[in-house]
Amino acid sequence: MFEDTQIVALIVQKYGGTSVGTPERIKHVAQRVAKFKAQGHQVVVVVSAMSGETNRLIALAKEIQPNPDPRELDVVISTGEQVTIGLLSMALKQEGLQARSYTGAQAQIVTDSAFNKARIVSIDEENIRTDLENDKVVVLAGFQGVDEKGNLTTLGRGGSDTTGVAIAAALRADECQIYTDVDGVYTTDPRMVPEARRLKSITFEEMLEMASLGSKVLQIRSVEFAGKYKVRLRVLSSFLDDPGEGTLITFEEDNKMEQAIISGIAFNRDEAKITVRGVPDKPGIAYQILGPVSDANIDVDMIIQNVGVDGSTDFSFTVHRNEFTKAMEILKNQVQPHIGAREVIGDDKTAKVSVVGVGMRSHVGIASKMFRTLAEEGINLQMISTSEIKISVVIDEKYLELAVRVLHKAFGLEQEDA
Amino acid sequence: MFEDTQIVALIVQKYGGTSVGTPERIKHVAQRVAKFKAQGHQVVVVVSAMSGETNRLIALAKEIQPNPDPRELDVVISTGEQVTIGLLSMALKQEGLQARSYTGAQAQIVTDSAFNKARIVSIDEENIRTDLENDKVVVLAGFQGVDEKGNLTTLGRGGSDTTGVAIAAALRADECQIYTDVDGVYTTDPRMVPEARRLKSITFEEMLEMASLGSKVLQIRSVEFAGKYKVRLRVLSSFLDDPGEGTLITFEEDNKMEQAIISGIAFNRDEAKITVRGVPDKPGIAYQILGPVSDANIDVDMIIQNVGVDGSTDFSFTVHRNEFTKAMEILKNQVQPHIGAREVIGDDKTAKVSVVGVGMRSHVGIASKMFRTLAEEGINLQMISTSEIKISVVIDEKYLELAVRVLHKAFGLEQEDA
Repeated sequence: MFEDTQIVALIVQKYGGTSVGTPERIKHVAQRVAKFKAQGHQVVVVVSAMSGETNRLIALAKEIQPNPDPRELDVVISTGEQVTIGLLSMALKQEGLQARSYTGAQAQIVTDSAFNKARIVSIDEENIRTDLENDKVVVLAGFQGVDEKGNLTTLGRGGSDTTGVAIAAALRADECQIYTDVDGVYTTDPRMVPEARRLKSITFEEMLEMASLGSKVLQIRSVEFAGKYKVRLRVLSSFLDDPGEGTLITFEEDNKMEQAIISGIAFNRDEAKITVRGVPDKPGIAYQILGPVSDANIDVDMIIQNVGVDGSTDFSFTVHRNEFTKAMEILKNQVQPHIGAREVIGDDKTAKVSVVGVGMRSHVGIASKMFRTLAEEGINLQMISTSEIKISVVIDEKYLELAVRVLHKAFGLEQEDA
Repeated sequence: MFEDTQIVALIVQKYGGTSVGTPERIKHVAQRVAKFKAQGHQVVVVVSAMSGETNRLIALAKEIQPNPDPRELDVVISTGEQVTIGLLSMALKQEGLQARSYTGAQAQIVTDSAFNKARIVSIDEENIRTDLENDKVVVLAGFQGVDEKGNLTTLGRGGSDTTGVAIAAALRADECQIYTDVDGVYTTDPRMVPEARRLKSITFEEMLEMASLGSKVLQIRSVEFAGKYKVRLRVLSSFLDDPGEGTLITFEEDNKMEQAIISGIAFNRDEAKITVRGVPDKPGIAYQILGPVSDANIDVDMIIQNVGVDGSTDFSFTVHRNEFTKAMEILKNQVQPHIGAREVIGDDKTAKVSVVGVGMRSHVGIASKMFRTLAEEGINLQMISTSEIKISVVIDEKYLELAVRVLHKAFGLEQEDA
């Protein structure tokens, strides 16, 4: 932690919606930033909209248009962060610091034109760097950018994390600190398993899996960004007066002498499962099924295709529950008649549970231990998918809590770090 | 009115905060715009923040910083209009129209850098023109712009009117319609004098005097703009299903065959009077008094200096009541010791009443009729100021309503247009 040293560093701090949810909390953030400034550090602060604000704006939009126009929705919801940057800059000035706010457009955070889920293409950090060198605190709006035509865009939920990591990468910051309402990354969600334990560090690969599997601490894209640009990332609590060390996200898995076999149990309650049955087993079929889904901007998570029988096979995948109806319509109306599949069935009452850990590469028996543990509780596995550092299963949603609890215990995650 | 004709025109419509105060009212605006589009017109809509929103944002800012930083305040409050343009664009799309929103920065409404009270320097209307030619309704954020360095700016209260007129001028629009909560310009405030009558037309000069004197229909700068660029301006009600013809603001005073002697009684309750007594009567003294006031960005309204006696004179002027304390401090601490004046006295319980009319140029006796009318009610005149088309007096605030009522009657303003 740079807080405890005399080293002068360039630090990016990202504060989420609850951390800036009231004028009082915004003042607290300003005081924390002032501490870092007093130690001589250069600080860029990235902020989200005040908690509840984005939802309020979306509700307003839906009163006007049930399916809000994507471009105009971004115009509306990007105001949330804009309010926060102005207010935090005022609070910093009130603390006697120099400060300057930047909207996404002002910082030239250029994205593609995928409204509501845009991706960052480039950042022009020169003005920000000049401000930092002139001893100013830079306050940057998270979550938003601008496309090449000047349209306002947003990065999707959790996009402020991505903004934080992206600006840290552009500035080659010494550390990107993500302040949130938890004090680090846990072996699983402590609200579900009280014995869950904070990890002092976790590798990027593990964090990626934890994030993508619904462990809500960080947005997956921000972790990808951090990994790609080697940004030192730390998750900390914004609610503790002394946030401690949080969890450091490391590049070098070898840093740990005694690698734990698995780091955590991740889960995702918002999973919906779709199966296309009786698919002709021939090349190109996966693309013909998923192409139209992808064209509709629906993200697909797990994909499973079994070996075919008699020239025909079943093809399953999962999508976010909110997009289940839309995906089913596309498959039934466009895909099924086109490829001549027998039927399309789906279930949006499913959940995904995963064990994650770089250590499992060198250990056998993790999968069988996982499957046995769940079988002992009578939990049926509907889909199974594995990668080098994780094993995921889709189960009936109603068994989710039970599954997470017994796996956390079976893998000894409540124990202290070695 | 273009509404009733078959002529295809380019119309700018400006809707104030109460006209877009709820999702329901925003939908009404969209329906009104749809009617104009159905007649083949090209329409640019300029909107304010939803009513109450700007005040809410200012209050939030003041919770953080009692005197909010001007630059950051503009960052915060300019979000109000940004929300409205997004919502109205959605409502227009919901009506089956094509629409595109523009923030001030996106429309390249370039201003100077006087935060909170910026002035428009230029507008790049080319993208807007292209959108109009492609049958899109353009929805433009009022009140806001961007300076040459890319800082967000706002034009001050009522600045949305200025935006409307400025874009109408840049596009050489056929008419700029200001929709508001009144159905036109009245001979005086109908809430104070029930007999007040709507004017079918009023000249720019008269409108300028009415606006600057606190008749709240239009912001003065917008009227100046309209006059400078010969923008045909019309004030209409946004609350009537049929807004009628409102009041047209004309360039050619000669249009009226029978010019009424005076058009209306204007008043301003927010006036504060300051007198510097015992001022050495020598050249440059007015500048030495008002220079520091102007440097503090305090607008001065009436200025009166009488002929001096024994090398010494009194110098009086009025400022907005909100700036009374600040102006008094400047005069007492900076000006008085510097110029060796005897004393500085002030009164913030004053009000200004004016009779306005281009017709008074060719009529004698207007002033004496005004003074007699007020004298008969026992109202003392504290200051008097005249121009070619208006006579203003400063009186004790408590007599304001009485003064307006008796003057309205004395000049026969309750009668129909000739």
